[in-house]
Amino acid sequence: MSMDTNNLRINIARLLDRLDQLAQIGKIDGDGVCRLALTDEDKAGRDLVCRWMHDLGLDVSVDRVGNVIGTRAGTEDGPVVLTGSHIDTVGTGGRYDGTLGVLAGLEVIASMNDMDMQTTLPLGVGFFTNEEGVRFQPDMMGSMVHQGHLPLDGMLRSKDRDGATLDGELNRIGYAGDVDVDTMRAAAFVELHVEQGPVLEQRGITIGAVDSVQGLLWKQITFSGTSNHAGTTPMSLRHDCGYAAGEIATFGRHLAIDMGEPQVVTVGTILMEPNLINVIAKQSIITVDLRNTDLTLLREAEARLDAHANNIAASEGLDVEIETLARYDPTPFDQRVVDLITDNAMTLGCSVRQMPSGAGHDAQAFAPNCPTAMIFVPSVGGISHNVAEYTEADDLEAGTNVLLHTLVSLANRETDLS
Amino acid sequence: MSMDTNNLRINIARLLDRLDQLAQIGKIDGDGVCRLALTDEDKAGRDLVCRWMHDLGLDVSVDRVGNVIGTRAGTEDGPVVLTGSHIDTVGTGGRYDGTLGVLAGLEVIASMNDMDMQTTLPLGVGFFTNEEGVRFQPDMMGSMVHQGHLPLDGMLRSKDRDGATLDGELNRIGYAGDVDVDTMRAAAFVELHVEQGPVLEQRGITIGAVDSVQGLLWKQITFSGTSNHAGTTPMSLRHDCGYAAGEIATFGRHLAIDMGEPQVVTVGTILMEPNLINVIAKQSIITVDLRNTDLTLLREAEARLDAHANNIAASEGLDVEIETLARYDPTPFDQRVVDLITDNAMTLGCSVRQMPSGAGHDAQAFAPNCPTAMIFVPSVGGISHNVAEYTEADDLEAGTNVLLHTLVSLANRETDLS
Repeated sequence: MSMDTNNLRINIARLLDRLDQLAQIGKIDGDGVCRLALTDEDKAGRDLVCRWMHDLGLDVSVDRVGNVIGTRAGTEDGPVVLTGSHIDTVGTGGRYDGTLGVLAGLEVIASMNDMDMQTTLPLGVGFFTNEEGVRFQPDMMGSMVHQGHLPLDGMLRSKDRDGATLDGELNRIGYAGDVDVDTMRAAAFVELHVEQGPVLEQRGITIGAVDSVQGLLWKQITFSGTSNHAGTTPMSLRHDCGYAAGEIATFGRHLAIDMGEPQVVTVGTILMEPNLINVIAKQSIITVDLRNTDLTLLREAEARLDAHANNIAASEGLDVEIETLARYDPTPFDQRVVDLITDNAMTLGCSVRQMPSGAGHDAQAFAPNCPTAMIFVPSVGGISHNVAEYTEADDLEAGTNVLLHTLVSLANRETDLS
Repeated sequence: MSMDTNNLRINIARLLDRLDQLAQIGKIDGDGVCRLALTDEDKAGRDLVCRWMHDLGLDVSVDRVGNVIGTRAGTEDGPVVLTGSHIDTVGTGGRYDGTLGVLAGLEVIASMNDMDMQTTLPLGVGFFTNEEGVRFQPDMMGSMVHQGHLPLDGMLRSKDRDGATLDGELNRIGYAGDVDVDTMRAAAFVELHVEQGPVLEQRGITIGAVDSVQGLLWKQITFSGTSNHAGTTPMSLRHDCGYAAGEIATFGRHLAIDMGEPQVVTVGTILMEPNLINVIAKQSIITVDLRNTDLTLLREAEARLDAHANNIAASEGLDVEIETLARYDPTPFDQRVVDLITDNAMTLGCSVRQMPSGAGHDAQAFAPNCPTAMIFVPSVGGISHNVAEYTEADDLEAGTNVLLHTLVSLANRETDLS
């Protein structure tokens, strides 16, 4: 960090005011927000953010999938140091998820404007279409198209439940831009986001320097056995899919404990057939969500789960089908950027911890193509995708200051990313 | 057994013919039967059985809850040696459950008529209203009212799903009789029934001499925890009701194995909230069906289950509610009658095993009031309450012959029941 930026700080009052203004658009009961991608509420939110971008003097561009990037020129004409996130929400979302990363980026620009500060490389603030994946699937659509991981044409044809196409909705709300996708290679990408989990709050840490996004694996296990009378069938003659479901749910826990952090395993759904109190279940369908930052370990967890399901089926005399519903490999971030975030947090007097992200984020789309990392701030109670989502103003301020110093350092080429 | 009855045998062709005729009433696809209590089909079935009773010379009476008993006089005017069961079925039932016990009773009478054989005490064959408890609750209603364990007036007021009362339906089909309930104390009660389980078939045994009906306990365990993100929530910070559900389902199995036969434990239903693949369950509702022939052991099983549920809740940081949905104490049968059945089976050359019943039967209503036991014959594949219910003709014949010899012995006071 150069000497003349050491005392640079963002204006938390201005950031909170923008967060509050944007939270009025799509506001729902409980101080929550419903701003599904490409709805009228999303258009109104986009229009407001674009007006702010213009007011801040940014050069605003819209690409063919509706991603919006506002750019502030550098003293040289090099690649952009980019920040940003998304402003679409889930159906009963909060005011920080995604939005913080976009409006913190604008606050960084505003603070630099206040100081009339130049950077060597250009700075950009973006918001990406349909990160949540609620109205159109898949999630992280805009950033994934932007960085060439999803095909534009296919995504434009995707439909919501009512049959409206993404393309049609982009045109309807005026965000079918003309900038080509899969063309921008940023100098670096840094995204500020609320943690959406309890780790920072529980440990009393202000800043998470996010070094990776966990890989994710969704397995569905279907056991098929025999329905029989709960009273007349001896234990030794049972083919009980309810027992097998229980074995999977408990094994998931034991597997996670045995492998240790960061392995997590969740059995969130169990469906039983016929689901009657006095009938041995003839079928059970169990889903297992496995995540790890290490691909080898994630594959080990998968292999152990599959083996256990097969063993249970064999010992209980059941048929078993194991399906993979989703598979995302772990995304490592750039350790140099992670370390820069860590250093900046400490310089600014913040407690900091390097940690993985348990949820997916737009930054994943950039990680394969440019040096990338994320900054987390605490979520009170770990609550997310909920109207009760909340982050303390002090933490918002600290995270945005870390973002500011990190972007300035990167845009001034103070960190060697060659 | 007196010398002159040693060679007495029933006529299996006549029994099969009656079973087949009755199975035509309410016949459904797959050779099954739907004859719900007090429907038009039940009326038609009752009318046919009553006609057979009259044709056999029985004195037919109908009581106020629609139970029908046909009596054959003895040489003395003592209490009746009674057999019987029910002719109502579940929605997709078979042709033997209940019906066998009634029509085997008629075949016993027919065989004795053929031989012009007298007994000292009168013999009776009954069928009892609404044993299955599908259309009106509770099950075993007619026999329980008959023996004074359920109040007549309350039962007459019970309603089916469409609001029809039991009383109204009895009148509609012409089976609201005028005989008072809770007045008959039989000399003995013996019921022939299909096992509805796999034990006899698996062990290659023809006759079960049923020495008790298992006690039954239905528990519902509700865990309440916290919904959280499956990716961002470390294992140590979870309050996971899906894991707790799994612990109950596996514990149920381990409890049954540890306690040994005849303890059985079944987790037939699990419901999860919100039941989403990537959300830690905030609630799970698990039912546990526990049965044992020994009341002390059944209470031990209950205590161990409750303790385990409380331990899991404490260790996982969950609230837990444990409700009792049903509780029936075990019903012991009369060992002298059980031994008589066993002896008769052996004399007739049949393999025999003394065993408990896992399901409830009309005989339970009689057991507290008179010497009572049951005879089981094998169910192919243990299948019951299913159109595929089946028992081999040789086994029907063997069971009915054992019933014949047992009833004759009891009615001739050859067994000391004083």
